[in-house]
Amino acid sequence: MKKIAAIGLAGFLAAATTTTVMAADPEDAIHYRKGAFSAMAWHFGTMGAMVKGKMDYDAEDFSRRADIVAQLSKLPMEGFIAGSYEGDTDALPAIEKEWDKFEGGMNMLVENTAALAEAAKSGDMAQIKPAFGEVGKSCKGCHDNFKN
Amino acid sequence: MKKIAAIGLAGFLAAATTTTVMAADPEDAIHYRKGAFSAMAWHFGTMGAMVKGKMDYDAEDFSRRADIVAQLSKLPMEGFIAGSYEGDTDALPAIEKEWDKFEGGMNMLVENTAALAEAAKSGDMAQIKPAFGEVGKSCKGCHDNFKN
Repeated sequence: MKKIAAIGLAGFLAAATTTTVMAADPEDAIHYRKGAFSAMAWHFGTMGAMVKGKMDYDAEDFSRRADIVAQLSKLPMEGFIAGSYEGDTDALPAIEKEWDKFEGGMNMLVENTAALAEAAKSGDMAQIKPAFGEVGKSCKGCHDNFKN
Repeated sequence: MKKIAAIGLAGFLAAATTTTVMAADPEDAIHYRKGAFSAMAWHFGTMGAMVKGKMDYDAEDFSRRADIVAQLSKLPMEGFIAGSYEGDTDALPAIEKEWDKFEGGMNMLVENTAALAEAAKSGDMAQIKPAFGEVGKSCKGCHDNFKN
């Protein structure tokens, strides 16, 4: 109550708005976050093919994709809402139970994709490869813990 | 041949790289572009709820979503590749037959979402509503012609 009193009416209204925004349909939220992850996977997969030498390395295209992945990495989080851990999803209820750990993992993804986008600007595979590997670890870390 | 001779070896290699990039799996391409559109729909839908007064208008949140939609609008185009107009998709083969018209529609979407993002910064519904309407028309225009 002290906190609510401190932030006052404007803050309370802002909080109420946030509640409205968060009261999205869980099915829509699942569809949304899957969409964002699918778009990331397309670009990250193409980048992976270049890193692994399965596709010619095109520095400009790689950097463009790295920027996109860094932006997309910020999107899925708002799709993880109450009621969205059942139905057409592989996301596990462990996300709600270990929210801080999950949020930390998602924040790490945002940080690591930003670092990869920065490394990509160098055009130097010696800088890109380890940054790419860190993003891959971020993906795997959350999938191991929170994805069926 | 004249054109190939004119752009020389570097150009040819660049073209070859582009071909490699474009030789993606049609199923992956479908999954990708659907993902990008789904992510757009989530944000545009929430914006629509605010425009229609079904949700409290939050200028900052609206503007954030408008920026995201403007960025996302640039993504789906590279998912429209040969072989991707059958299978798990509502995209019609008319896209390939009327490519220039389709491309024009997608470019219009990019322009209109950028204008909406700009209008959103004003926080003025009188500017936002018509810009929002233009984006809606862009969506509908392509769906009417190119989506089952």
